[in-house]
This record gives sequence, C-alpha cells and structure tokens, in this order.
Amino acid sequence: MAGAGRALLQFVAETGFDDLPKPVVEVARLAALDWWGVTVAGAAEPVARRLGEVLNEPPGPASVLGTARTASPVTAALLNGIAAHALDYDDVHLDLPGHLTAPILPGLVALAETRRLGGGPVLGAFALGAEVMCRVAQALAPGHYRAGWHATATLGRLGGAVAAARLLGLDADGLDRAVGLAAAQLGGIHESFGTMAKPFQVGRAAADALLAALAAAGGVTAPTGLLDQRGWASRLGPDWRPAALTERLGERWALAEIVFKRYPCCFATHATIQALLALAPRTAPATIEAVELRVSPTTLRVANQLDPTTGLGGKFSVTYCAATALARGRVAEADFADDAVREPHVRALAARVRVEPVASLDEMRAQAVIRLTDGSTREAWADLRAGAEPERLRIDLGQKFEVLVAPSLGRARTVALRGVLERLDDVDDLREPARLSAPAGG
Amino acid sequence: MAGAGRALLQFVAETGFDDLPKPVVEVARLAALDWWGVTVAGAAEPVARRLGEVLNEPPGPASVLGTARTASPVTAALLNGIAAHALDYDDVHLDLPGHLTAPILPGLVALAETRRLGGGPVLGAFALGAEVMCRVAQALAPGHYRAGWHATATLGRLGGAVAAARLLGLDADGLDRAVGLAAAQLGGIHESFGTMAKPFQVGRAAADALLAALAAAGGVTAPTGLLDQRGWASRLGPDWRPAALTERLGERWALAEIVFKRYPCCFATHATIQALLALAPRTAPATIEAVELRVSPTTLRVANQLDPTTGLGGKFSVTYCAATALARGRVAEADFADDAVREPHVRALAARVRVEPVASLDEMRAQAVIRLTDGSTREAWADLRAGAEPERLRIDLGQKFEVLVAPSLGRARTVALRGVLERLDDVDDLREPARLSAPAGG
Repeated sequence: MAGAGRALLQFVAETGFDDLPKPVVEVARLAALDWWGVTVAGAAEPVARRLGEVLNEPPGPASVLGTARTASPVTAALLNGIAAHALDYDDVHLDLPGHLTAPILPGLVALAETRRLGGGPVLGAFALGAEVMCRVAQALAPGHYRAGWHATATLGRLGGAVAAARLLGLDADGLDRAVGLAAAQLGGIHESFGTMAKPFQVGRAAADALLAALAAAGGVTAPTGLLDQRGWASRLGPDWRPAALTERLGERWALAEIVFKRYPCCFATHATIQALLALAPRTAPATIEAVELRVSPTTLRVANQLDPTTGLGGKFSVTYCAATALARGRVAEADFADDAVREPHVRALAARVRVEPVASLDEMRAQAVIRLTDGSTREAWADLRAGAEPERLRIDLGQKFEVLVAPSLGRARTVALRGVLERLDDVDDLREPARLSAPAGG
Repeated sequence: MAGAGRALLQFVAETGFDDLPKPVVEVARLAALDWWGVTVAGAAEPVARRLGEVLNEPPGPASVLGTARTASPVTAALLNGIAAHALDYDDVHLDLPGHLTAPILPGLVALAETRRLGGGPVLGAFALGAEVMCRVAQALAPGHYRAGWHATATLGRLGGAVAAARLLGLDADGLDRAVGLAAAQLGGIHESFGTMAKPFQVGRAAADALLAALAAAGGVTAPTGLLDQRGWASRLGPDWRPAALTERLGERWALAEIVFKRYPCCFATHATIQALLALAPRTAPATIEAVELRVSPTTLRVANQLDPTTGLGGKFSVTYCAATALARGRVAEADFADDAVREPHVRALAARVRVEPVASLDEMRAQAVIRLTDGSTREAWADLRAGAEPERLRIDLGQKFEVLVAPSLGRARTVALRGVLERLDDVDDLREPARLSAPAGG
C-alpha cells in the first residue's frame, strides 16, 4: 500500500511554506510575478474574452485578472488559466515538457482571494503542486508526451489539484482523493497546438484542478492510490517509473528548474531565436541567402508549422520565428498578429530557413548558421541554461511584467502591482493584488 | 479531406427533427422522460448536493432539476449531469458500453431553457448527438473501453458537444470545432466506478460538452478533422474502424437500441437480477445452499466487487445484487443504502454466490442456477432483449418516473411533469418542465 505515490502525497501533506529552501521560495515568487503579468495581458486576447462571454455566468467572489469582471472561484480559475496561456508566454519546465504555473496558480489565487488565505501558503502550495506535477511527468516520460498528450493540461490537473487541496489543509487521504477526482477529468491533446483550444485546455485544467480539490475537501469520494497503480498510468503512455515520484524528494526541487520565457511563442523556438538575435544586428536581411538551424527533435515535433497564416500558428513555426528575429531584430507579441505573420518580406525569409533535428540537443540549445549572398557564413550557438543568475532574472522578469501589464492597467497601477507581487509571501490578503489587477476605470 | 468523420458531421448538420423516423422520436421522448426522473431523484444524492455546495456560484438563468437552485448554463449542465448518473439508474447503450443520455441531455436542456428553444429541436439534437457518440464508440471498439476509459464520460463529451452545437444551429465546420474543443477536454476512467467520481465525471462530460459547443459558436478556434485522424484515435485505444462512422447512416439509428434500466445498479448485473427475481417468489432464502451464475465477461470486469461496504460499492457487486434479489424479492434504491449493503443475512447469502464468465454471453443475458439444501436445483435464463414492446416500455418507464420523482416533488407535481414530458416535442418553452421540477415549496 505505501508506495512511492503515497509517500509523495505524505511529503506534500507534511511540508509547509517554512520548510521550503530559500531559493525555491525566490523562484516561486518570480513564477507568480511572471504568471500574473502574462495573465493580465492575456485577458485581452480573443480566446479569453470569448470564453468569458459564452459562459453567461453572473459575478462572483473571485477576480478575473486584467478585467473588471468577477466570477465563481472555479470559473475564475478557468478564465485566468486560459488568459495565463493565451499568449504562450508563460513559464516552461522540461520535465513535462510543458508549462508549469498556468494550470496550478489560478486555482490557488481564486481560493486565497475567496477564503482570505495569505501569499505564503499560496507559494508553498504552488511549490508542492509543481513538485507533484513534474515528478509524475518524469515517471511517465517520455511516452506520455510522445503519445500526443499535452502534459500541461493532463498532468496540470494533478499538480493543480494537489496544490489546491494542500492550500485547503487536506491530509494525505484528502490529497489522494483530490488526485482521483483530477484523474477523472484528465485530458488535453497536442492537436490543439496553434489554435485557441491550447490555452482553453490549460484553463480547463486549472479549473478542473480546483474543482477536484474543493470536491475532495467536501467529502466527495474518489478512486484512491492512483499514483501507485500501473494500470492507471498505462492509459497515459507506455512508460511508468514510479521511483521518480520520490527520488531525492525534499532535496531536488522541480521549481528550481523552471524556465521563464523571453519571447511570446512556443518554447521550442527560443534557443533558435536567441542564437539569431545575436547575429541579427550585424546581418542585413537582404544579404541572407539561407539559414540553417540545428535544433532539438522536439522543436520539429511541436513547432514545425511551415507556412502559418495566423498569429497562433506563427507561435508554433520555428521558421517564422527565425525569420522574425532576423528581419525585425526582435520577437515580440506584435509579431504574432495575423497581419504580421502574413507580411511578404518575412515569409520570403522564412522560406529560406532549413531546420535539422539533432538528437543530442534538447530544447535549451540550438545552433544557427547564416549563409550570406557573398559566400561567407555567420554562426551562433545558444544555450538557455547559461547566464540565468537570479539577480539578472529578477530584473528581466520585472521588465517583462511592466511591458505586458502597463497597456491594460496603466503605469502607476502596474508599478504598484509589481511591488506587491515581489513580496507576495508577505501579503496577508490576496484581494490586494487582485484589486490592483483590474483596469483603473473598471 | 472528406472522410467518414466529416460525412457524419455533414449528416448531423443537414438532419432536422422532422427528418427523424417516428420510432426514433418516440424513443427520444422516453429517454428524456427517464433521464428527467433519475435526475430529479439523483439531485438528492450526496454527490450532487456536495458538488452544488463547493462550487460557491451565485444563481443564474438555468435550472438545477429537483432543487430550488439555479445556475449558469454550464454549471446547471454539470449538476444535472451528476444527478442524472448519481443513482446509476439511467439508460444504457451497449455500443459504448455505457450510458447514453446523461452526458448529452443536460447541456441541451440548459441551452433550451436559457434561449427559449423548444422540445422538438432538443429531441432532434439529442438523437443526432447520440448517433455520433455511439458511432465513434463503434469505431473505437472494443479497445477504448477495455483500456479503462469510461466511454460515457470520454465519448459523452463528443456526443454532447455535437448535440449542443446542432441545437445552436452550427454548420459542419462549427460542429467540427465543437468536436475539437470537446476532444481537448476528454477524460473519464474506470477506476472511478463504485465512488462518487463516477457520476462526477459524467457531469463533467455534460458540462464540458456544452462549453465546447458554446465556445465553438462563439468563434473559438480548435483542431478540426479529428474524427478523420488515426493519430488522435490511437490515444484512445488500439482500435479504429472509421467505416463505423457512416455505415447505414440515416437507416440504422443508435437511439433505437437504447436500453432503459429497471434496477438502480450497474447494468451488467441486470440480466442476473431478472433471472433471480423470476425464481425468488418460490425460493425461501434459508433453503438456498449455493447460487451459480453464468454471465457476460463484462459483468466480471466491472461489477465484481466481492464484499462491498458502501451502497455505491453494492451497485457494482453482482453477488450483492443477486443476494438482494433472492433475499428481498426486489432490487430497489433502498437496497443500496450503506446500511442495507451491510446487513448480515444478505451478506451471508452473497457469500454463497459463484459467478462464471461465459464468452458467448453479452450483458443482456445471464443464467442462474440455485442449489437448494434438499439437493434439488432451480434454474432461470434472462434475456433483456425479449419482451420490450414500446407500449409496455411506456407504462413501465412512466411508473419508474413516478416512483423516483414523487418523494421530491409530491404527487400532483410529479403527474403534471410526467404529462408535459410525455409530449416534450410539443413544448415550446422548456422553462415549463424546468419550473415543475423544483420542490413545490422551493
């Protein structure tokens, strides 16, 4: 009975915010700041707005960030979860591979806001939910993702449910039922990539996770012990290595390996973009004959749309992203407007990009070679693991936050919100940042 | 491009209520009556009540049947979907195998009630959604169910989404996007059987289906053409026979093969119960030495709980159901109270029941042999396909409806509601039966 899955849930039940290592708390704070920024900005995206409209739900006790709207906690988690991933600009974790915070934090924020829970417990529950999500992902790797399941959505339900159940103070039995109720709803597929269904299914995961936790807390019965059942895992892919659930538990933290996005597109394009941005300032687009990229096989699997015609499609096109970096010298949200994706000079350059998968590369690394019309070549390597010191990260993410949030909330409110979020574990009442996240006139 | 999946959606888009064969309309009417009855009764079950409480959602424009409560349309679909399956007394279809109406009708009723749509279009959309659900199930059979997916929940999202999208008047492209958004949320597992997670995941399917349709109608983009993609289907099991999507389309109707439950427990126990109820009146329990059952292999797969300790567990225990039929001469909802399941004289009899799977039997047939203490034997066969004439069915389902509904709504309201539901296709405004479905004082 007492398998690795149960031991993992026991660890979650017994670990409090004060038990987290200091660097993990710092990363959790940065992840919350980054999530909040992409969510406020994402709320203006069509997918978030349209879902808000079709629900036909009256106001409630929880905030839909970036809007003047309120909703029931589960619906707020849905809409904030959709908004968090609407720009595909939210954080990433290679264990999944996929997005870590978007399916977990919306439920915690909605809970905290409606039940007057503080920022410290929220960050603690978030770190523990992230731990469960990444460890289950490692146990199922690589078959789960390769089978076409979108781990952000599928396993996000498990991580989010455990996090919310932990925030509600459930014991290991309660956490186990929350896992069961999350597993009962588990879905999310790769075919959604490049359509609004991708952020939709992430929001669905966030909402389902919160509902699973609330139902478990409310005494709803469920299958238990799923994390110790091979049969359950076999439905999610051919691989199952339960030892991953507890290896170095409490020493190695999943959150410590989170990756924050610097460009609002599929993470599998980022190393390529970074390599090309290093070359762009001294390379006139007209002089480029061909671009050769060597990338992770994953990049070709998920970001290989060859001739995208929509902005969302462009986010999953490494050739379009490469052409944007070279032709525009940047990769920003405006470059993923439908019009921008269709601009002839960028499409012409994208058509000259060749991509080669290299088995020894993961999504953190890429090589770019530019062949110029004069016969010379220019070359750059990118390794996203390099140069990620905490202080630099704090500054960069703070700037990203302000760029994303100011258009919705205005400069003053943006700066005030950033200040509150940077000390989130000291905030006793999450209604404070929630209130600051509505447009000033709303 | 124009594969069988697309042809099926085209058929749905082009078929109206008036195109349905008259016997299909009659079955649809009976299915709606039966669904309404189990839903009103199921609303009093703990799983439905607890979910209603934890949602913390204010009133809205749609009714939660059997209660005084209202909610947003999606939440009403969730709670009515949970209630519909809470007693495990709702209809069954062997193509799935699973429950047909529970994941489809809640969304349609919520839509009709909030948008003033009539009973005829609702029944038409229901028949078409049922058709899609059963045809996809046949295309995926038998591997999808055998892999441990609960087809009621997984494929219920597809059927429910197509039905709701059809009621909203979407064309084949819109139906395709609704399928994509349903597929993005698709989940539901056998491990939930015997716990509250089973009705929960059915309600989740009903709500997700409605949300998929509303989002598709609202212009949310999604993966398209999934019903013509082997890759998508392969995630749901090893089998995929797309020809099933269109074989005899428009001639053979899935709804014509629906099965209504006469006992409030797992359908795989029903043939056994019917055989034993035929023997019970002339068999004193004290004279029974042993009971031998020959049943479908499915019965042993899903209804083989050997010593259940809860009412929900008892519903998935063919030995407990057999003992109840013999010891009590009936199998009714009261026999699935936790106390009833633990009664020593029934448990003692259940311990004397032996079950043998026979490959040539399906869930519609079973054989029972009773060995008496005097050395003699008594034997009975049951075949649920026999004796199901429409007129008999109408009478039986009307009685079942009244038995289920009267305790909540009182006799007068129950009779009035039955009258309205029996002519549902003539009802212009579904707020009429919805209003009658709240307790009189509420």
